[in-house]
Amino acid sequence: MTAHPILDLVRFDADGLVPAIAQQHDTGEVLMMAWMNREAVEETLATGRVCYWSRSRRALWRKGESSGQVQKLKELRVDCDGDTLLVLVDQHGVACHTGRRSCFFRAARGGAVVTLLDVETPPETLYGGPRH
Amino acid sequence: MTAHPILDLVRFDADGLVPAIAQQHDTGEVLMMAWMNREAVEETLATGRVCYWSRSRRALWRKGESSGQVQKLKELRVDCDGDTLLVLVDQHGVACHTGRRSCFFRAARGGAVVTLLDVETPPETLYGGPRH
Repeated sequence: MTAHPILDLVRFDADGLVPAIAQQHDTGEVLMMAWMNREAVEETLATGRVCYWSRSRRALWRKGESSGQVQKLKELRVDCDGDTLLVLVDQHGVACHTGRRSCFFRAARGGAVVTLLDVETPPETLYGGPRH
Repeated sequence: MTAHPILDLVRFDADGLVPAIAQQHDTGEVLMMAWMNREAVEETLATGRVCYWSRSRRALWRKGESSGQVQKLKELRVDCDGDTLLVLVDQHGVACHTGRRSCFFRAARGGAVVTLLDVETPPETLYGGPRH
């Protein structure tokens, strides 16, 4: 299989990784940021299902493989200097392991931190037990 | 001056940096991704004008200081594990040094790479000469 030419534009860092921002394609919500290696980018493009690299588990992480909250790829974009990806997705359910739609649910407002999003799906439902 | 409590939630990496995604607050466009250190976050919150850390120049980078394309802060958010920021901004003009609105102007479509955005402001207008 020939590699997709967008891979020639990606500059992976010294660890072979590139940050990938996941954005819901129709609402514009920024859902999460995670990392991809070359294999994760290739798999995402080949399968149409978003795959990251888990830095903690040091393994490919097919988003939703344990939670069921998969991301269908709508479009993969690369930035001007090739060191960040923007992945337009269709997020099934919630993106965040806390059970919220987006990982970016806390904001600085005035002198305080406020929580913007409620838990939609309890984590114990997502993972069937304590977070792993 | 007391530090904003959101700083207690940010986990800076081994280099003292955290990735910051800039999103246009009203349209939802993801404009760019850059890095902040603690001082950049503090300055951004204090001044209401977005300030990054330039890894190449090793200095604070007040977005727009040479191009005029400043970002006004609308809201700063932090993700669930504190290792990424989402900065909602009001972008004056273009975010990208190429003169495009967003840095994410190239996409994988089919087997090709397509350019999605036109140059709105030529770089020589932005910088008054070759890119520096």
